[in-house]
Amino acid sequence: MNYEAFFKSELATLKEDGRYRIFAELERKAGAFPAARQFFGEQTRPVTVWCSNDYLGMGQHPKVLEAMRETLDRCGAGAGGTRNISGTTHSHVLLEAELADLHGKEAALLFTSGYVSNWAALGTLGARLPGCVILSDALNHASMIEGIRHSRAEVHKFEHNSPEDLDRRLSLLDPDRPKLVAFESVYSMDGDIAPIAEILDVCEKHKAMSYLDEVHGVGLYGPRGGGVAEREGLMDRLTVIEGTLGKAFGVMGGYIAASAALCDFVRSFASGFIFTTALPPALAAGATASIRHLKTSQMERARHRDRVAQVRRRLDAIGIPTLDNPSHIIPIMVGDAHKCKRISDWLLENHGIYVQPINYPTVPVGTERLRLTPSPVHTDGDVDRLVKALSEIWSQCELARRAMAA
Amino acid sequence: MNYEAFFKSELATLKEDGRYRIFAELERKAGAFPAARQFFGEQTRPVTVWCSNDYLGMGQHPKVLEAMRETLDRCGAGAGGTRNISGTTHSHVLLEAELADLHGKEAALLFTSGYVSNWAALGTLGARLPGCVILSDALNHASMIEGIRHSRAEVHKFEHNSPEDLDRRLSLLDPDRPKLVAFESVYSMDGDIAPIAEILDVCEKHKAMSYLDEVHGVGLYGPRGGGVAEREGLMDRLTVIEGTLGKAFGVMGGYIAASAALCDFVRSFASGFIFTTALPPALAAGATASIRHLKTSQMERARHRDRVAQVRRRLDAIGIPTLDNPSHIIPIMVGDAHKCKRISDWLLENHGIYVQPINYPTVPVGTERLRLTPSPVHTDGDVDRLVKALSEIWSQCELARRAMAA
Repeated sequence: MNYEAFFKSELATLKEDGRYRIFAELERKAGAFPAARQFFGEQTRPVTVWCSNDYLGMGQHPKVLEAMRETLDRCGAGAGGTRNISGTTHSHVLLEAELADLHGKEAALLFTSGYVSNWAALGTLGARLPGCVILSDALNHASMIEGIRHSRAEVHKFEHNSPEDLDRRLSLLDPDRPKLVAFESVYSMDGDIAPIAEILDVCEKHKAMSYLDEVHGVGLYGPRGGGVAEREGLMDRLTVIEGTLGKAFGVMGGYIAASAALCDFVRSFASGFIFTTALPPALAAGATASIRHLKTSQMERARHRDRVAQVRRRLDAIGIPTLDNPSHIIPIMVGDAHKCKRISDWLLENHGIYVQPINYPTVPVGTERLRLTPSPVHTDGDVDRLVKALSEIWSQCELARRAMAA
Repeated sequence: MNYEAFFKSELATLKEDGRYRIFAELERKAGAFPAARQFFGEQTRPVTVWCSNDYLGMGQHPKVLEAMRETLDRCGAGAGGTRNISGTTHSHVLLEAELADLHGKEAALLFTSGYVSNWAALGTLGARLPGCVILSDALNHASMIEGIRHSRAEVHKFEHNSPEDLDRRLSLLDPDRPKLVAFESVYSMDGDIAPIAEILDVCEKHKAMSYLDEVHGVGLYGPRGGGVAEREGLMDRLTVIEGTLGKAFGVMGGYIAASAALCDFVRSFASGFIFTTALPPALAAGATASIRHLKTSQMERARHRDRVAQVRRRLDAIGIPTLDNPSHIIPIMVGDAHKCKRISDWLLENHGIYVQPINYPTVPVGTERLRLTPSPVHTDGDVDRLVKALSEIWSQCELARRAMAA
């Protein structure tokens, strides 16, 4: 076996298929985001970021930066250990209390990332509940799929966002077996939102636990930023709410919020929680400041909605084919990996507009897209430049407009 | 199924077995570490930390804090996206170059933690190399075991640190199948060190890839802090070196260093790399500063060796039963979960000495221990107080001393 040759040939295949990823090397400018610089070796050029998951610009909020700076100066860089072995700091404890309060739950448990929180929590619940069956939405995120796979629990996929199909599948199972229904509120690539209440009705009917991934919802929806489930008054009906500190809250980390016993159970048995260094205290403090701010401030969420609506309206007006959805994510459908990459490159080179092409395996082949995430810090001028540039490239490449796109 | 009752009963079992973990809530004092405060609600008391994996105190090094502060101010809090979607910053690129250089490899790839780097790299290599067989040291860390398990590759455990057993097992396999030998340099709970050269001889004989976890070695061993493999001149013979930024480097994050093709392969296929928010740029900058410092400064490593030797000598002199090993980790063997916890509590309450009890599943039942990690920032006074307190509790509880321990 020639290992190097194997790796190289697999990479060559990716390149032929247009699926090889080239990361844009950026440097965000705190206080000026979405402005950033793109690096090419020693050279840089200014760009406007249109595809960040720092949805509200909280990654540059003065309160967040001040909390991080202050904690860094006072407590140092890293946590220095796992949560059990010297790595639990006062900042972690305060953050977990803040998260429990955000979701109206008894407790919350921090992980190093949203990916790890899904993987570890679903992996542990699925493996440790004797005979557990997991019902998983067909479009769940990779981290949930990997956690479920890891648990080796029996798993049944249900049709995306279909309470009816979920009900059918639950009806076929032994009523006495433990069951867990795992789904998301906002699906990040299509931007559609789950019928949470209807899914919960089905869960309750079949005595299944419910596990909602709100990573694209927390901070953005609900009067205190508790997510879509908060907006719809459903948090208390959910068994587990999973969220991230790395998107709307602007920092890094993941968590679950649930009953004290469930959190303590995952805390006690999840390998991915136990055997890893804790988040740096400065990150925990920054996240706490961000959550607290968004619990009371409505300005960011209001302006976010306004920006999203404005971009949608402007794109609709010139027939750029976007996917309709009720969320803050605007997918511009291209449907071809090479074309998607070429448009993205052109926008960057000619207009300094950075929007990453989204290709397989993140989305299915044939649904390649540009995924726009307007934020409160995008100005009218930013929107003008974006719409004008998209119109230009759509004409230039004779790409289908919405009327013709059908 | 009553889920809450199930969780509670499992937790009750843990408590009965003395395996229920209570996290000490701390706040490190930057500049004064190992001094910290322990919280009890609103109350605090001063403690000295003796079990941190911030082995060299780099988590409070002025260069590290300055790099983090500067990057935080300039670039903001989080990365704002996955590495592919707006989350690759100049700081990440510089850090990966620094890591490749540290290990004399063509490339390096960053992950959000050491746990994730093992899980994702081993999981991807094991799953994607057709017919791959993984040979795994019997005492490998949980993150390696989970990654190997996740890959669903055929796996054979070999006897801990036994090149002979590894050779025997490799001899039984089809010579044409891809093979990967996964092991650690310093095993963190016993502090023993692998016979890396002998294991590499066997790997080369059987044309197996080698994967060395150096998380407890990087920064600490070798003239530039490249780890045990650097000290022994073996880095170029290793296929993959895996390390962490969260222990001796004092920050957070994990990585692999290897050929450009291998890193690019893992970058392109590892779910745990692709679908997660990148590390905050400030963490990347802090880690880079730490690595750079330890590439040239020998002071920390020299004083670290001195402190470890001094603590060992002092404990030997009074017969406290430590596990012999050639590393910086000093396990004091207690052998009983309840007793281990009681000693730890007593040290904390009576002397403000914090050393976490290490119980199952971190170590096997019957080998419960206190795991001391002396660091360059522990003073002679700290060592005196530790030794005196241990002597006192050993007498008080009539615990076996070394002469009697055998």
